[in-house]
Amino acid sequence: MLTQFYDDLETRTENERKKAISKVLPVQIKNLQSLGGLKGIDSDMIDSVEALKQLPVLRKSELREMQQKKPPFGGLVRGTIEHIFQSPGPIYEPGKDTHDWWRFGRFLHACGVGRSDIVQNCFSYHLTPAGMMFENGAKAVGATILPAGTGQTELQVQAAFDVGASVYAGTPDYLNTILEKSSEMGLKLSYSKAVVSGGALFPSLRESYLARGINCLQCYGTADLGCIAYESSEQDGMIVEEGVLLEIVTPGTGNPVKEGEVGEILVTTLNSDYPLVRFATGDMSAFIGGHSACGRTNVRIKGWMGRADQTTKVKGMFVRPEQVAELVNRHPEVSKARVVVSRVNESDSMVVRLEVSGSSNQEYHESVQNIFRIKGEVEVVPTDKLPKDGLVIEDLRSYD
Amino acid sequence: MLTQFYDDLETRTENERKKAISKVLPVQIKNLQSLGGLKGIDSDMIDSVEALKQLPVLRKSELREMQQKKPPFGGLVRGTIEHIFQSPGPIYEPGKDTHDWWRFGRFLHACGVGRSDIVQNCFSYHLTPAGMMFENGAKAVGATILPAGTGQTELQVQAAFDVGASVYAGTPDYLNTILEKSSEMGLKLSYSKAVVSGGALFPSLRESYLARGINCLQCYGTADLGCIAYESSEQDGMIVEEGVLLEIVTPGTGNPVKEGEVGEILVTTLNSDYPLVRFATGDMSAFIGGHSACGRTNVRIKGWMGRADQTTKVKGMFVRPEQVAELVNRHPEVSKARVVVSRVNESDSMVVRLEVSGSSNQEYHESVQNIFRIKGEVEVVPTDKLPKDGLVIEDLRSYD
Repeated sequence: MLTQFYDDLETRTENERKKAISKVLPVQIKNLQSLGGLKGIDSDMIDSVEALKQLPVLRKSELREMQQKKPPFGGLVRGTIEHIFQSPGPIYEPGKDTHDWWRFGRFLHACGVGRSDIVQNCFSYHLTPAGMMFENGAKAVGATILPAGTGQTELQVQAAFDVGASVYAGTPDYLNTILEKSSEMGLKLSYSKAVVSGGALFPSLRESYLARGINCLQCYGTADLGCIAYESSEQDGMIVEEGVLLEIVTPGTGNPVKEGEVGEILVTTLNSDYPLVRFATGDMSAFIGGHSACGRTNVRIKGWMGRADQTTKVKGMFVRPEQVAELVNRHPEVSKARVVVSRVNESDSMVVRLEVSGSSNQEYHESVQNIFRIKGEVEVVPTDKLPKDGLVIEDLRSYD
Repeated sequence: MLTQFYDDLETRTENERKKAISKVLPVQIKNLQSLGGLKGIDSDMIDSVEALKQLPVLRKSELREMQQKKPPFGGLVRGTIEHIFQSPGPIYEPGKDTHDWWRFGRFLHACGVGRSDIVQNCFSYHLTPAGMMFENGAKAVGATILPAGTGQTELQVQAAFDVGASVYAGTPDYLNTILEKSSEMGLKLSYSKAVVSGGALFPSLRESYLARGINCLQCYGTADLGCIAYESSEQDGMIVEEGVLLEIVTPGTGNPVKEGEVGEILVTTLNSDYPLVRFATGDMSAFIGGHSACGRTNVRIKGWMGRADQTTKVKGMFVRPEQVAELVNRHPEVSKARVVVSRVNESDSMVVRLEVSGSSNQEYHESVQNIFRIKGEVEVVPTDKLPKDGLVIEDLRSYD
């Protein structure tokens, strides 16, 4: 019989959690400083999620440069690790197989996976860390694992049937491929749970799984960070994992968006082996107010809401979120900006929309020209009138 | 700095090893009896490799039947395990990730792999246990692992280059594929060792690796049993792993061949989690006399010498090694038999050659007809005149 919660961390009061963070976060900052990072910062002052905003954001592109200078991990790993993984870039991730190192155990527990389960792990173990992440999580909850990887669907169906696999772990869509193949083969599988990640889980697909007796929950994680947020049986948003601190910021900046607005997810891990502070995931989401009805008290986010990297090309020049941020920075009265790219008379057109309290248009044109190296129309709108969808570059061109 | 030997087990005297076996083997027999196997056997009497020949051989086909009756492992596993693997058949194998559970650590150590190494593990982790076997062995010697699997060769080369992988683990041939791709890509890799298994390592290939500065050693293992025998730097045969007992028998029987003759490898593991006793590997090899020059004292075998399963079809009927064994059993004066199949005038022809001390031909024809259900010519030869190559069925037909 599974207990309701994975541990006491999940049901802490806001104050208890804040107090715990005030103790462990300065230590983690020191961990990063011991590796040469965050020079000149008083680690004791970084004692809350709010205090993190004083610190620089670590982007994937910077991590990659650090790794190239100091392979394989840019000098960001403390002590020994067991695994080296490779993700597209290429970028390299360290891995350890100590207890729930990747933090997927909490998610699996929330889905009811435990000692009596056989987890068919359909994430790849090759180069990418996804397979080993779910392997590590399944071990943390005492489940038995059928390491299956991707492909070889007919063999997978036979294995699921023969061993009586009770849990599917993999991308949301591949379960459907397995179920269709099992129908073809006339084999009734015994999955009762599915733990999915790595892609959008469409509600209709989740319902079709439920109709076959499979309770499907999703989590959000990345190759660098492991599990970041997860659904519980209430399916009322994704609860932030207790081993990470999560911020949502305007893409291209380190500035938190207003409560409920869409922005880029920054994550600070409390894992002392690999201290990543304010790591920019490139993924978009938004906080949900209140708490999950399941009783877990940590903050929640909506699911994955697209990629933050809105970099695009206009008239042959790259337009990047960082440039939009620079434009806002240059003018104190500008609170927010949005570049809208479209196609007019078979030619690229750029409109820069600014939320402004006062001042003239002329200097914005110059700034736009200097920063973007292309001409753009400037539109001034009142404060709070730009859409709150996390986009700083909106591309209206059709690529069909 | 690596010490020469993995542990004290490798350099035991013959008497020390026999004494140790006399203690652990009866316990392992009891382990199997606790699962319902080997009923009526006095486990205390099974105290040496020689004593094993009183016990029945366990064939893969029987294991498969046991698994189908009692999935997934036929009731042969004691306690809890972490992994379930699937091999062609399908047949299922249990796995644990406790220290050197699959016993590949000893092989890796003999190849000089240790804490300072990065092992690129090019065995698949998906369904088959091969990847996890070498993973487990690499952890046992403290190496860091790049789980790479098969395929994605360009990404593998990039990873090997970026992280400075020092050891290749995989099939003998795939290393060549990686090296060719690295030349194409203009990347110089830093492999200095290669630990290979799962296929024949041709001497010319080993030499070509050595010419590139890569010292390549091979081991022999199976999905059910893990590591069985391994080469040391002396490359003078494969030394039997200390956690298994190895017999070489006439295919289709449990009768040991004479010293130096080719036969089928039977393995008894001393692993109490999964007690396999006299498991028929289906692989052929032969003992080598004496000991390796490296100082390891355990018995040695030649490399893999083909498959023991010589089952073939003659005139539409299966002819199996077990039938040849039955023929020998039926006639006390027959010490050995060999079925030679060929093609005469566009038709299958079977000659049964028997090593006989006395007696007439007539009754052999009847036995042959009764046992094989087809007619065959019988040739009687003097004792010790049949070839000692391990074949009981020799198929001379050309399938080109």
